[in-house]
Amino acid sequence: MDIKEYLKEKKELIDSFLKEYFSSPSTPSILGESVTYSLFAGGKRIRPVLCLAAYEACDGDSEDIIQFASSIELIHTYSLIHDDLPAMDNDDLRRGKPTNHKVFGEGIAILAGDGLLTEAFFMMANSLSNKNIKNTALIRAIKEIAFVSGIHGMVGGQAQDLLAENSMPDKETLSFIHKHKTGALISGSLRSGAMLANCTKPSLNAISRYGENIGLAFQVIDDILDIEGKTDELGKTTGSDERKKKMTYPGLYGIEESKKKAKELVTEALFAIKDFSGKAEPLREIAGYLLKRRS
Amino acid sequence: MDIKEYLKEKKELIDSFLKEYFSSPSTPSILGESVTYSLFAGGKRIRPVLCLAAYEACDGDSEDIIQFASSIELIHTYSLIHDDLPAMDNDDLRRGKPTNHKVFGEGIAILAGDGLLTEAFFMMANSLSNKNIKNTALIRAIKEIAFVSGIHGMVGGQAQDLLAENSMPDKETLSFIHKHKTGALISGSLRSGAMLANCTKPSLNAISRYGENIGLAFQVIDDILDIEGKTDELGKTTGSDERKKKMTYPGLYGIEESKKKAKELVTEALFAIKDFSGKAEPLREIAGYLLKRRS
Repeated sequence: MDIKEYLKEKKELIDSFLKEYFSSPSTPSILGESVTYSLFAGGKRIRPVLCLAAYEACDGDSEDIIQFASSIELIHTYSLIHDDLPAMDNDDLRRGKPTNHKVFGEGIAILAGDGLLTEAFFMMANSLSNKNIKNTALIRAIKEIAFVSGIHGMVGGQAQDLLAENSMPDKETLSFIHKHKTGALISGSLRSGAMLANCTKPSLNAISRYGENIGLAFQVIDDILDIEGKTDELGKTTGSDERKKKMTYPGLYGIEESKKKAKELVTEALFAIKDFSGKAEPLREIAGYLLKRRS
Repeated sequence: MDIKEYLKEKKELIDSFLKEYFSSPSTPSILGESVTYSLFAGGKRIRPVLCLAAYEACDGDSEDIIQFASSIELIHTYSLIHDDLPAMDNDDLRRGKPTNHKVFGEGIAILAGDGLLTEAFFMMANSLSNKNIKNTALIRAIKEIAFVSGIHGMVGGQAQDLLAENSMPDKETLSFIHKHKTGALISGSLRSGAMLANCTKPSLNAISRYGENIGLAFQVIDDILDIEGKTDELGKTTGSDERKKKMTYPGLYGIEESKKKAKELVTEALFAIKDFSGKAEPLREIAGYLLKRRS
């Protein structure tokens, strides 16, 4: 299969759903502008696509869960807006554009993030209208996304990252941050897709193992790209982690060891879903694609 | 009935659930400390209590929905933490104690708010385990809370409030802010309680009208107390709205007219639920109690 074509097609489905969903103006209008500024800033929609691909791997038709999957992009976007704030990473540039608070001010940026996070749960619950999703599965999937995004997931990882800045790298802390800040939502995207398809327990476990490995691989590759990538391809200044004295995988293990680690993680991910049918082909291809990405 | 006793008893149920729920430490520990600092800062739990009272008015046993109702307090608490931030209202004192960011720093305060908001939805979805709640009702109730808390509810109201600061009062804007910033979540607390009890459509409409009126009355009385209340009873400095040039009901209509308005709203609220049985007595008593409160 042509994985680039698959990713493009799914991204377009997500984008077109989100465009339609956010087509009416908000009051005050600046709040809606702030929300859509970041939501349509060129995200690759990788988390929603993983959710769709996991749903398909468990025999679902991804059209059923476009709304649910799209909601995960709102959570990802809110986390970027809040992470960029002066009290957090204090970033001026994101995907080649000024960060949300640089354009709309800190107060509105905080509220845009709050609004995106809340709207995500509205969209999930709004999937109630789809007859192909069982109510129990939907509630379990909502619970999963809330768990991986919250105190014991992404928010916990970001808090640890904030505290660890300007400190000496420590393997345990770095692993905690990667697992929670990035890995949790990636794994949750996949797991919620599998849950919505009412997959079996062994299948859910397999998807979880795939997700854990892919999630960590994603972050390790991100760290490598921050050193090796080109600024124009990434849309942010490379080397920014080092300047901010952020803990990174290459910083702790060296670049060659990190590349080796990324490959191992991808192999582990593929092994976890080896018993799935051909419907898991997108998941397999995505794993390989992650290793090759340049931005 | 003794409404003070009722409020005390329900508050204790909520408090004891929340204490137990947040009894294990978080990683990093400062995040958990920041969350519990604000969650246990002396809130009256009025929104959860309204949710329980509406559930009871529709023939439910409030024990069923303690977890769901408690989650609403997390949303209220997150909104206070974010509202107090320097980029928003920039408040140093809340309920007689230093605000969250004054104690834990802005970054952790933002994340504590994000964590509380996310955890609220986890708790709601976690109510799946209760056999007396129907799945469809639970999803509808989650959708309701997400709607009233988000861009078209509380977050929208707060954004408008932020933009309106230091500007001339305008009746339409003030009404929008009151309705969205405070009224929406109060109304949503009541409506979600009624939804969880699977009440009839006419009953839900009646509870909605009660909620709209009570929500606005609550805010008008808050504004009056900011002028007339004693600092030690309120736990914040009185007259702070005027110093910050915040738009308020008394500022626009005068204090006597505001008191008259509050009374009218309570009368309207009582009228809306006149056909309910004796099980709505707590809702009736709460309406009267709001008028008399001093903090």
